[in-house]
Amino acid sequence: MNFILKDENSIYYEAKYSCDNAIYLKLGSEKFFITDSRYTEEAKSESRECEVIESRDLIATLKDILAKHSKLEIVFDPYEWKVAEFEALNKGIELNLKAKKHFSQKRRIIKSDEEIEYLSTASKYAKAGFERFKEYLSIKGVGKKESELNFKMQTLLRQKGSLELSFDPIVAFNENTSKPHALPTDRRLSNGDLVLVDAGVKYHRYCSDRTETFMFQKTKFSSVKMSAKVKKIYDIVEKAHSETIEKVRTGMKASEVDKIARDIITNAGYGDRFIHSTGHGVGLDIHEYPTISAKSDVVIEDNMVFTIEPAIYIPDFLGVRIEEMVVMKNGKAKVL
Amino acid sequence: MNFILKDENSIYYEAKYSCDNAIYLKLGSEKFFITDSRYTEEAKSESRECEVIESRDLIATLKDILAKHSKLEIVFDPYEWKVAEFEALNKGIELNLKAKKHFSQKRRIIKSDEEIEYLSTASKYAKAGFERFKEYLSIKGVGKKESELNFKMQTLLRQKGSLELSFDPIVAFNENTSKPHALPTDRRLSNGDLVLVDAGVKYHRYCSDRTETFMFQKTKFSSVKMSAKVKKIYDIVEKAHSETIEKVRTGMKASEVDKIARDIITNAGYGDRFIHSTGHGVGLDIHEYPTISAKSDVVIEDNMVFTIEPAIYIPDFLGVRIEEMVVMKNGKAKVL
Repeated sequence: MNFILKDENSIYYEAKYSCDNAIYLKLGSEKFFITDSRYTEEAKSESRECEVIESRDLIATLKDILAKHSKLEIVFDPYEWKVAEFEALNKGIELNLKAKKHFSQKRRIIKSDEEIEYLSTASKYAKAGFERFKEYLSIKGVGKKESELNFKMQTLLRQKGSLELSFDPIVAFNENTSKPHALPTDRRLSNGDLVLVDAGVKYHRYCSDRTETFMFQKTKFSSVKMSAKVKKIYDIVEKAHSETIEKVRTGMKASEVDKIARDIITNAGYGDRFIHSTGHGVGLDIHEYPTISAKSDVVIEDNMVFTIEPAIYIPDFLGVRIEEMVVMKNGKAKVL
Repeated sequence: MNFILKDENSIYYEAKYSCDNAIYLKLGSEKFFITDSRYTEEAKSESRECEVIESRDLIATLKDILAKHSKLEIVFDPYEWKVAEFEALNKGIELNLKAKKHFSQKRRIIKSDEEIEYLSTASKYAKAGFERFKEYLSIKGVGKKESELNFKMQTLLRQKGSLELSFDPIVAFNENTSKPHALPTDRRLSNGDLVLVDAGVKYHRYCSDRTETFMFQKTKFSSVKMSAKVKKIYDIVEKAHSETIEKVRTGMKASEVDKIARDIITNAGYGDRFIHSTGHGVGLDIHEYPTISAKSDVVIEDNMVFTIEPAIYIPDFLGVRIEEMVVMKNGKAKVL
């Protein structure tokens, strides 16, 4: 397959180097990395098996190369191109371009050992960040705003800037936990509040993704019990989470994996409160394949990496979500 | 003019509210804000004069509205649409869509008093961040890596998370300053190093942009002098910067403004080392109109806001850039 890539992560996957202004072209065994003068030095030393071409107009340079191969079918992802750029690419030249949506992400669905190592390390760093954050909360959390604590979480995760975030974290208290994508507010933390934290970091560009929901305790030594109603909901989500991880097997369809979690929540009477899919692949992008949803026919295979994140959201009351990343190994899921 | 917007900042300019999944449609005096259930509540309370429509498929909803007005000419920006999305928009329906590149940014070239107030406040917060950073450097900077200090600068600018960054800052030492978009390295700061910092924050979504280049001093009380060669280059850039701000007038073409700075640097013998344009508009986007370059015919008017950032880059030796934002008022430039 001959193809063009424009997305930074898609290019990284092929070339092991990427930057924010590049086009990658694979033509048979020839691979071209087109970028501007800011990045050509790095591209030459770090990219794998590519001919690096410096250009002030990347699309014009791409066209010059393609003009010599105008009959070849070349695949592109119509989500990677803006209309204006795609028009510039096709202007004054007859090309045989074939649209394949998300084809790069689909190539990346099975992870290599190295990728799994990076994903595992990203996950470990994030877990350590969650621990530091909970320690901080227990000592200094009372009275702090969601927005301040969100920033604190970012700072703790980033380890003096040596790690990047996978996405802007979610830090929500009580009612605000009921929004799957809660934005930080000025609400202040009190002892006994329910806290939901969803965050991740990148290691060698590979993302982690993790959610914990817990009752806030003022110090490590006091203990705050969940009310019976909160505890009931928490336990249902926890059961959906742990049983799905325990029961998922290679050979299942992703929809069957989704069904394990969804049935537990539905049988407990909260089916209409689990308003998203059970999980998603994770890799260079925070959302990749396989999608673990009721609609997904993808068959689970060894070396796929995805999240298991069942949840129950009750508007104006609370949300509980528990999320971990797993890798499929020897037919079963292993938590990263 | 009837138009569709998809970019978050373009939509914000019209609706005074925006989010990361929205389409804005203006049809005569009717204005529609289409978004998903995560954002409809906020959109209803905060957006201006819009009918807010909740949708699970924004493009399908847009098509339903457009189907009733299929003969109207409707403007869109081909840089705001991905090929796949634009195909979905046009599939099965005959529309009269007209591409106008960057038309929203062009509408935003003259700033209102309120916008200038926000830009001015963003600039003041960033300046205060630069001061805190230099104070920090003088006390704790020695031996710290570029990457650590970059993170410190981000932390100081963000004021406990109450402000967002306009872009990832540049913090570069010595030779690394010679790259206009230097990436942070593991190089450690020594007394007497040349330091270049380029950074900004957003206030009410409006960006600031500022660059300082200075010699690093270990404490406030010691003084490190620039070497004669560095000082000579610094003084040329400083002269280009201050004289351009002093001489720019409404009625000039942007290319004439660029020429003021470029002539000073060229006459000093460094014309080929000033490798970018003299400035760019700033607003909701960090790069807006007018572009202050040799190619730009835009006539400067009151209430335009743009940067003046002449520079000299000598590879493997140093770069000096001095950047401030100005607003045109009563025919002249006022530094923000």
